[in-house]
Amino acid sequence: MSRADLLFPSEPTQRAIARELYAHARDQPIISPHGHVDPAILADDAPFPDPARLIICPDHYVTRMLLSQGIEPASLGVPTRDGQPYEQDGRTIWRRFAEHWHLFRGTPSRLWLEETFTNVFGVTTALSPATADEVYDAIAAKLAEPEFRPRALFERFNIEVLATTESPLDDLGRHAKLAADGWGGPGGRVITTFRPDNVVDMEFEGWADNVAKLGEIAGEDTGTYRGYIAALRKRREAFIAAGATSSDHGHPTADTLVLDEVEAAELYELGLRGEADQDDAEYFRNHMLVEFARMSIEDGLVMQLHPGADRNHNKWLYARHGRDVGGDIPQATEYVRGLAPLLDLYGNDPRLRLVLYTLDEDTFTRELAPLAGGYAAVYLGAPWWFLDSPEVLRRFREAVTESAGFYNTSGFVDDTRAFCSIPVRHDVARRIDAGFLARLVAEERLPLDEAAETIVDLAYRLPKRIFRL
Amino acid sequence: MSRADLLFPSEPTQRAIARELYAHARDQPIISPHGHVDPAILADDAPFPDPARLIICPDHYVTRMLLSQGIEPASLGVPTRDGQPYEQDGRTIWRRFAEHWHLFRGTPSRLWLEETFTNVFGVTTALSPATADEVYDAIAAKLAEPEFRPRALFERFNIEVLATTESPLDDLGRHAKLAADGWGGPGGRVITTFRPDNVVDMEFEGWADNVAKLGEIAGEDTGTYRGYIAALRKRREAFIAAGATSSDHGHPTADTLVLDEVEAAELYELGLRGEADQDDAEYFRNHMLVEFARMSIEDGLVMQLHPGADRNHNKWLYARHGRDVGGDIPQATEYVRGLAPLLDLYGNDPRLRLVLYTLDEDTFTRELAPLAGGYAAVYLGAPWWFLDSPEVLRRFREAVTESAGFYNTSGFVDDTRAFCSIPVRHDVARRIDAGFLARLVAEERLPLDEAAETIVDLAYRLPKRIFRL
Amino acid sequence: MSRADLLFPSEPTQRAIARELYAHARDQPIISPHGHVDPAILADDAPFPDPARLIICPDHYVTRMLLSQGIEPASLGVPTRDGQPYEQDGRTIWRRFAEHWHLFRGTPSRLWLEETFTNVFGVTTALSPATADEVYDAIAAKLAEPEFRPRALFERFNIEVLATTESPLDDLGRHAKLAADGWGGPGGRVITTFRPDNVVDMEFEGWADNVAKLGEIAGEDTGTYRGYIAALRKRREAFIAAGATSSDHGHPTADTLVLDEVEAAELYELGLRGEADQDDAEYFRNHMLVEFARMSIEDGLVMQLHPGADRNHNKWLYARHGRDVGGDIPQATEYVRGLAPLLDLYGNDPRLRLVLYTLDEDTFTRELAPLAGGYAAVYLGAPWWFLDSPEVLRRFREAVTESAGFYNTSGFVDDTRAFCSIPVRHDVARRIDAGFLARLVAEERLPLDEAAETIVDLAYRLPKRIFRL
Repeated sequence: MSRADLLFPSEPTQRAIARELYAHARDQPIISPHGHVDPAILADDAPFPDPARLIICPDHYVTRMLLSQGIEPASLGVPTRDGQPYEQDGRTIWRRFAEHWHLFRGTPSRLWLEETFTNVFGVTTALSPATADEVYDAIAAKLAEPEFRPRALFERFNIEVLATTESPLDDLGRHAKLAADGWGGPGGRVITTFRPDNVVDMEFEGWADNVAKLGEIAGEDTGTYRGYIAALRKRREAFIAAGATSSDHGHPTADTLVLDEVEAAELYELGLRGEADQDDAEYFRNHMLVEFARMSIEDGLVMQLHPGADRNHNKWLYARHGRDVGGDIPQATEYVRGLAPLLDLYGNDPRLRLVLYTLDEDTFTRELAPLAGGYAAVYLGAPWWFLDSPEVLRRFREAVTESAGFYNTSGFVDDTRAFCSIPVRHDVARRIDAGFLARLVAEERLPLDEAAETIVDLAYRLPKRIFRL
Repeated sequence: MSRADLLFPSEPTQRAIARELYAHARDQPIISPHGHVDPAILADDAPFPDPARLIICPDHYVTRMLLSQGIEPASLGVPTRDGQPYEQDGRTIWRRFAEHWHLFRGTPSRLWLEETFTNVFGVTTALSPATADEVYDAIAAKLAEPEFRPRALFERFNIEVLATTESPLDDLGRHAKLAADGWGGPGGRVITTFRPDNVVDMEFEGWADNVAKLGEIAGEDTGTYRGYIAALRKRREAFIAAGATSSDHGHPTADTLVLDEVEAAELYELGLRGEADQDDAEYFRNHMLVEFARMSIEDGLVMQLHPGADRNHNKWLYARHGRDVGGDIPQATEYVRGLAPLLDLYGNDPRLRLVLYTLDEDTFTRELAPLAGGYAAVYLGAPWWFLDSPEVLRRFREAVTESAGFYNTSGFVDDTRAFCSIPVRHDVARRIDAGFLARLVAEERLPLDEAAETIVDLAYRLPKRIFRL
Repeated sequence: MSRADLLFPSEPTQRAIARELYAHARDQPIISPHGHVDPAILADDAPFPDPARLIICPDHYVTRMLLSQGIEPASLGVPTRDGQPYEQDGRTIWRRFAEHWHLFRGTPSRLWLEETFTNVFGVTTALSPATADEVYDAIAAKLAEPEFRPRALFERFNIEVLATTESPLDDLGRHAKLAADGWGGPGGRVITTFRPDNVVDMEFEGWADNVAKLGEIAGEDTGTYRGYIAALRKRREAFIAAGATSSDHGHPTADTLVLDEVEAAELYELGLRGEADQDDAEYFRNHMLVEFARMSIEDGLVMQLHPGADRNHNKWLYARHGRDVGGDIPQATEYVRGLAPLLDLYGNDPRLRLVLYTLDEDTFTRELAPLAGGYAAVYLGAPWWFLDSPEVLRRFREAVTESAGFYNTSGFVDDTRAFCSIPVRHDVARRIDAGFLARLVAEERLPLDEAAETIVDLAYRLPKRIFRL
């Protein structure tokens, strides 16, 4: 059974308005300007693997919740990098997951998974330990059908643009294939995003090697800072040619720093010699944000900043399974002083679009909304990661709208690796926005017609415009 | 059309109670113990200028939102101080503003402006690019009528007391005029507030000159610290004679510091010689807060502390237009350790009334409510500036009531420069309080009769008593 | 009149669901794994003293609110330690309290007291200055009856387990008496909790003496670090023999530090010589948390950490009345980096159960939910002290559920000294959880049957399991 009123306020006046507003947004095409879907999925258009490998193993929201109750990721099929064995049987993984389904009550994972089962795969049996096999088999059967190939789903999902994320070291071969098939390239349906962290962050495993590879791929001598900058510029050009309209920067902090070329070169050389300490690495990252802002003004890439994750906080998990498997923890993040050097230079320049994300909800009202509502270059990104959830999406609007309005927010970003969860994630955001706007209407704060225009702006027009799509 | 249920919860039980509670508060006289209306407006009682000059140009809430979308303040008639031209034509400014009216959806500015148009000027046409001229002309016509002179509006607004804010360097001439006309002086309708930042903060532009002027106006030798303190005392006396019942202190932090006279004099002399660094300036401000608390105990001025703004964060804006035009950004603020030195000395002395404001909502529950609920001298000021908005006013009650109750909060403060917006600002606070109390009643947490008494206390009796009016 | 719908959402759909869910939880036995009831009350089972001495004098929530309005604790019967007189007459204290009853509007104290009057003592007259004597006399009359002796109330309250809190210096004599009466000991109805702050925190008044006493009571030489550790282990064994299943640690911060035995011994000896400074004391506390985690893995005591109170902030109050009388203030608390050293060692070990509490609500979403949702050893304790209130209990669920689910939270903890308030405190938590779950059901986010199972888990099964009761 479908849940027509999912996430709408239950108060009848607000619910009726929310339904009406949602009806305007529901069928808008999906604009997904930031995410982590593997472009190979769409380039190759091969059938998806079994349900566990599609849905459980790669989803760190799921495996971390199970880890928090003592179920080790290896037992859920998460690949190890230390040679320890990990579960290979999809059905075993699925049963283990279903046994602990109650842990997800009240979480967005529960919502995403249920709606994916129902709306993508047409499986309406409620998951439980008793129905684990039934649900597994039903999804597996669908995955064998041609209508469940990635490109077919892409069309069914009504996605207009999907941006993936690649490092400058990526040869963009998948995107070339997509372009050749009429799916990619500038203005295409699947585009890339320039994510240079692994060549910017000296603390990134293998940074020096990465920088050397960057030189090779760009045909520049990255043995010097000048060559390094030239290589980055060339890669940005290549990314733009592959359709990119934005860059993405995942930093520990939002601090920025203006260095002259001599100072920057000194830090860079320190890094190359393996002599940069933590502070040096931080200063170099801070400086590079300013450098990238300058490049953005020149080449037009929208600049996204994702600060505030304490990466690989769970060291055991990192040692066994590596990065991006659920071992990161948010921390308090400061934007006002941190961004000041960058904003002093470019904050009032409308050619720059700096989209700020956060894992620290406390900054919504205090820092981010005032910055977005006070600088021409600053936009507020959608609640991200731990904050991409119904309650926080609603608190986000409640917190930022009064200082930043709706039009300094850049629209929903799913940020997902899980291709099949894209529709429900956007749907959740649209439903929450409908509920928030419905309250404004019900409290006589906004006329219905303006609310209706606003929800379409939020769902479709704003992200399209702000991300230059 | 009037919006009778504006901002009330839409759930019918709560709405009915909110209406009933609001009816008790609606017609209470306005007590405005803190704000920035120019006293000349009421001293001279001259007609207001055109609608743009009245409503747009001086309202940094409006011009900063437009700046955030790339519309420069100069194009909205904000005076420049760097010689650049700025728009002079009221109608052009108004049209430019109306074109971007949608940016204000969901903001308090929208609410304040709409209610001002309707309730003050009787203009019920919805503003839009198409109706810009019509609304402009209608307001302009009203402004020409004698009923729209400042004093007539003051009476129509049912203001009982309005406090303006002056520096110790002000000669209080406007207030003398008001007193002569029977409008000012102790117990009068328009009173002043003692705001000494420009002679306390060594980082304030022209501090040394200001201190010299302070000496002249007070007839004391401010070349010495002792003379400086004597001058401040004299000016407080003059302010009290002009009706002041409170002082106001806008500091970067809430830190306080107890210095003996020798130490304080050393810092002061360092400042006079232009040798004080950032730390010295901060220590001197911190010390002066303690000094002012001591003076408050002696002379009875209620002490207001407004910390937490990073002033002139937008440096381009500051360079072009100066202070107080929308370039400040809030930052995290610490009160518990910062205020400890002051509270150790005077926190349990009921003769002191220290009203604390914040731009950092995170401190509501964690710091401010416990301090106000644990020290006889401490009161919680209303949500301020970026936080003076329906959502935050409601979150304020939800956050602070459980630790501080209602009776350690000091009542609503409009803090506005915009004289015509005073009624709607107080009305919003009364409506939000009605909604909050209605929920307590609907959830069987407070009987209706006590809620009714409470809302009148919040709207009228508490601010009158706490600010010694 | 009873308030059947107390604290339930007023929206009819949600209210109906909340009623139904609450019906499942209402009569579950009370599990109270953390609190400060004096075990002598139950060991001696003597009648309670007069209403003021039972309800007002020892309740720092009440006396601090009155202090915040200038009513001194001594006038409310709070014992002084500086020789100043304090009010001895129960009726005078009660009248003084009743005169200021309006101060408690909207606070949990009001709710707890009203429900205690009604449900425990059957007094339905609303308290007011006019009815002060009537209410006093009615409660006093009840206190004289045998049904109002502590053990009779314990049974009437349907308490299954009550944990008190003792220091390692306590001889556990009361608990021996309870065990002898069939009320205590392992698996008993009244058990103890191991709270070693006064022998761990070098800044605790009399630490060196306490450590010496610890040696005596344990029969170990605490003149050496090794002996000190041995003494702590022995006392933990004694506490476990008296029924303890958990330890409790009240620290200023959540910082932890791994020292080797030589380093730890050096700090310890510095402390014994009276040469430890603030930093040394902090490092030693930080190290001991890691040490206690190690012991917990060995002996199975659940480890509770309560950081974030700035103790004795109100110095006048401390000088006059000592500790724990309302002079503490919360402060910002950091967990992510602070706990990292401990979690690196033991965070993924399911034998450890580390229950984290906070006074800093900002950490709910940002730090605590991600930690509890990402480490097998970490659980989220209930909102505590200033945060133990209806609004925060609701915000807690709204903030933490999406990252941590329900099953990484450890259940409600009353933390109270006020024996008679135990039922209402648990009832408030159950009602708020019912309301929260009702909203999830009404918004089609959780089926009713799962919500019904969840509320019983939260009320009863989870705390019982997690605290190993």
